Amino acid sequence: MNTQYEDFFNKLMRAMARIEKENLTQNEEIPLGISNRHIHLSQQDLEKLFGVGYELTKSKELMQPGQFASKETLLVCGPKGAISKVRVLGPVRKQTQVELLEGDGFKLGIKAPVRMSGDLAGTPGATLIGPRGTVVMSEGVIVAQRHIHMTIEQAASFGVHDGETVDLECYGSRAGLLHNVVIRANSNSRLECHLDIEEANALGLTSGSRIRILK
Amino acid sequence: MNTQYEDFFNKLMRAMARIEKENLTQNEEIPLGISNRHIHLSQQDLEKLFGVGYELTKSKELMQPGQFASKETLLVCGPKGAISKVRVLGPVRKQTQVELLEGDGFKLGIKAPVRMSGDLAGTPGATLIGPRGTVVMSEGVIVAQRHIHMTIEQAASFGVHDGETVDLECYGSRAGLLHNVVIRANSNSRLECHLDIEEANALGLTSGSRIRILK
Repeated sequence: MNTQYEDFFNKLMRAMARIEKENLTQNEEIPLGISNRHIHLSQQDLEKLFGVGYELTKSKELMQPGQFASKETLLVCGPKGAISKVRVLGPVRKQTQVELLEGDGFKLGIKAPVRMSGDLAGTPGATLIGPRGTVVMSEGVIVAQRHIHMTIEQAASFGVHDGETVDLECYGSRAGLLHNVVIRANSNSRLECHLDIEEANALGLTSGSRIRILK
Repeated sequence: MNTQYEDFFNKLMRAMARIEKENLTQNEEIPLGISNRHIHLSQQDLEKLFGVGYELTKSKELMQPGQFASKETLLVCGPKGAISKVRVLGPVRKQTQVELLEGDGFKLGIKAPVRMSGDLAGTPGATLIGPRGTVVMSEGVIVAQRHIHMTIEQAASFGVHDGETVDLECYGSRAGLLHNVVIRANSNSRLECHLDIEEANALGLTSGSRIRILK
């Protein structure tokens, strides 16, 4: 490029950056939910682990409607090691699913792929040990893909749709831009971005941190 | 903006993106070094912990010239907990320094700030317990700020200088752009980007992953 064009481009880029920034500040901030490793159980596996007819004990409601942390925890085992006191979330689901941190995979000797919740075909299993029994999973161990829950109306106001991936701008001393953040829009949701602890720590985020969608 | 300008701007933005991408593909890839929590000791503290006249036992040379992982490990304690088998790196330094992961800080009850190595004024301390003694640090506990080592010549070829911060583009299923990556350019360095395990896991990076500087 010759200098004349270059100067013109530079000026224009600064103007564009300003416009971009103005658009950005009109965007709503997204509440952040930071997840540790956790387990979702099927009713059948719940009963195998805790006894026939067992029901989870609600400990704390989560942001997403109907979801809760239970008082129950399990030992998660793989070929290389085990992690104790992994929290079970409720209510029960159709299929048992373990969501690990990347670092847990090394400890357990389980190579868990990054997947959306429920997308379990071809994933590895783990062994779950509870007070009344053991479950040997044939599949269902994943690292959760980062995602943002919202209603259909909120998706429309952000100009995004269910299943789309967006970037997430994170501010602070470990600031960064996370790609591949999946939009999960449905009628039974509340606006919340789910990152796991390693992602939050790497970006220096806590539950009160500022994050925004960038398209 | 009216539509005419908008169209023009969009075309221009696409052209700029192409130019940017072409520049990018000319950039050299950066080897990635992934750090776990670790300790640097002063000679005085080394002797307090392991005995008078003690020398570290080299276990593995690191990428940066002269630096090595030793066979020695220590128990690191804070008001809320302790972490065992934290690796000591050599050679000894002027001041003892503990580099934690963000997650370790919660476990230990130590709020370690994100700092560059050696920038320890005003940081919290920890208690180190070794086979022959204990060191109560008054300061020196940090979370390492992500950085890229390189020679002065390499800095020139990347168009960056010592102390500058750049962005780091990371590719893969957990791709993202990390801001605030500090350039450390001096004559006694080898090209290597240092991220900690949480940063690497959050971005889905392993030591063979592709990363590039974006200015």
